[in-house]
Amino acid sequence: MGFEDGSRITISTIAREAGVSVPTVSRVLNGRSDVAPQTRARVEELLHRYGYQRRAGRARDGAAGLVDLVFNDLDSPWAVEVIRGVEDVTHAAMVGTVVSAVHQRPEPARTWLRNLQVRATDGVILVASDVPSPVHEGLRRLGIPTVVIDPAGVPTQDVPTIGAANWTGGVAATEHLLELGHRRIGFIAGPRRLLCSRTRLDGHLAALEAAGVEPAEELIQQGDFYHESGYECAGRLLGLDKPPTAIFASSDQMAFGAYEAVRRRGLRVPDDISIVGFDDLPEARWSSPPLTTVRQPLSEMGALAARTVLRLAQGERIESMRLELATELVVRDSTKALASPPA
Amino acid sequence: MGFEDGSRITISTIAREAGVSVPTVSRVLNGRSDVAPQTRARVEELLHRYGYQRRAGRARDGAAGLVDLVFNDLDSPWAVEVIRGVEDVTHAAMVGTVVSAVHQRPEPARTWLRNLQVRATDGVILVASDVPSPVHEGLRRLGIPTVVIDPAGVPTQDVPTIGAANWTGGVAATEHLLELGHRRIGFIAGPRRLLCSRTRLDGHLAALEAAGVEPAEELIQQGDFYHESGYECAGRLLGLDKPPTAIFASSDQMAFGAYEAVRRRGLRVPDDISIVGFDDLPEARWSSPPLTTVRQPLSEMGALAARTVLRLAQGERIESMRLELATELVVRDSTKALASPPA
Repeated sequence: MGFEDGSRITISTIAREAGVSVPTVSRVLNGRSDVAPQTRARVEELLHRYGYQRRAGRARDGAAGLVDLVFNDLDSPWAVEVIRGVEDVTHAAMVGTVVSAVHQRPEPARTWLRNLQVRATDGVILVASDVPSPVHEGLRRLGIPTVVIDPAGVPTQDVPTIGAANWTGGVAATEHLLELGHRRIGFIAGPRRLLCSRTRLDGHLAALEAAGVEPAEELIQQGDFYHESGYECAGRLLGLDKPPTAIFASSDQMAFGAYEAVRRRGLRVPDDISIVGFDDLPEARWSSPPLTTVRQPLSEMGALAARTVLRLAQGERIESMRLELATELVVRDSTKALASPPA
Repeated sequence: MGFEDGSRITISTIAREAGVSVPTVSRVLNGRSDVAPQTRARVEELLHRYGYQRRAGRARDGAAGLVDLVFNDLDSPWAVEVIRGVEDVTHAAMVGTVVSAVHQRPEPARTWLRNLQVRATDGVILVASDVPSPVHEGLRRLGIPTVVIDPAGVPTQDVPTIGAANWTGGVAATEHLLELGHRRIGFIAGPRRLLCSRTRLDGHLAALEAAGVEPAEELIQQGDFYHESGYECAGRLLGLDKPPTAIFASSDQMAFGAYEAVRRRGLRVPDDISIVGFDDLPEARWSSPPLTTVRQPLSEMGALAARTVLRLAQGERIESMRLELATELVVRDSTKALASPPA
């Protein structure tokens, strides 16, 4: 495969010697419980014999270990939240955090994987829903412990993933607006290809249904989580013959876009229309008015991912392949009780 | 000094052997030109003989080098901008970027320095105006090439620093408001201890003077670059008997605070008052209204710092110890011509 560098045995050699498949060795390295005890023992013995634990040993010694934190792109507004959470944990463990972005790079993932191997990273945290599959495959082949932070909610089957409770967040935001008397609530959805988009919408619809409110199709607009789409979708909602009295934008960025659509029409948030977001980016506190939103605990997700990958690097097993942290509604000044009672 | 780990010679050993001071060796390593040619030759010969170039060699081989990017805190809204700029360059050079925050950590800087040495970092980029001096001293002693990204404008004497043209930015923002007919312009200053605060104010005052506008003392408010202080200072400005028609907040965060002060009084930006910021954070595009501001090229500063530290790591000399990148006024929707001509 070209990844051998002389000083390090590869996972495929271990697999060959143990008479098992590469994915099986990978499962052992990743602390999975679905490996037969005898197989696990045989693989672990070989890993030990070939010095495969050396990488983990560095982290265990508390000296100069490295964890790679990999984003698709560093232009995501919440990247720094995740970095802060990861760095808090790795710093305390005296492990360095190597931050990189892989998306849309001209050179192949192969080079990046080779670098990972040469610098003997202790583990990898992928922050992405759609990291290229060669990266996933390469990590599995190299047997590098991997954890996925997955705000988008697309759990992969073979590595531990950390997510947030999107459905519950969708419910909480909608219930908040219902309690304020709103019945005509616009919803701006995220991109269809991401599971979390659908999950947030489902939470919204479930809350409406529980309140006996019929969801009007025209009130659900298709966005893509970015600012511009929030602006456009909110513009369409405000242009309806019977516009909504509140908008639930399923990302903060789209909520800020909705703010601008409201402002451009000479209207005001929250006096003329209430707006709720989803994420609780730092900007949500600094927007005017400060945004009521559903908090995704991004730095806590980063911290949990770091703790998990360090445990994997030390050969520990983990309890669950999917961990979801709670979301929480944060009420600020962008939502307000409907002046007149609903019809 | 306790930093020797057996496999690596320290800079003080080199200094002793060469019969020069530690700072002199450090100057050679950092590419400074103020070292006598014979001294430089002697030090470089010793560095070579003791294998000191090994660290640089890793980066030169294009394989798995490491650069450490160090913040005081990762809660700065512009941290991700700097990270993106650095990572773009290091990624292309196949060097990993280790991101960390040192400020207010319980453990001493010494541990962090030891980690740097053990992982054999090729160079360090400090993003901070007030990194603790033990860090600076330790880096000098270890002879690790260091570059300071210094948006705050406090150039240090002995390492290369990358800054932005704060004075010119202060002039540009103020001239923009003057051209729109504003004469009564409030200014919200940054913290006194940072040179850049004073530099931006000086640019503002210079532009006023050039236009023959007398600066009123009551119009200059003391903030600290953060949101809350922008809110409070703008509140004081709006509460004056004769409030300003425009506010120049010398950070975007303070400008967003000013937005909120304006909104709370039932006024509107830019119809009732124009606001200019300074930074051009990503949020400036997404605020409502989008913020007119002075762009600090943070990602470009990161990229230049990365290129510089990689050059130092390869033993190259650099031309200048202080590089300032241009700032640029970005006009968006938060500023507007004064309706009636000034008195």
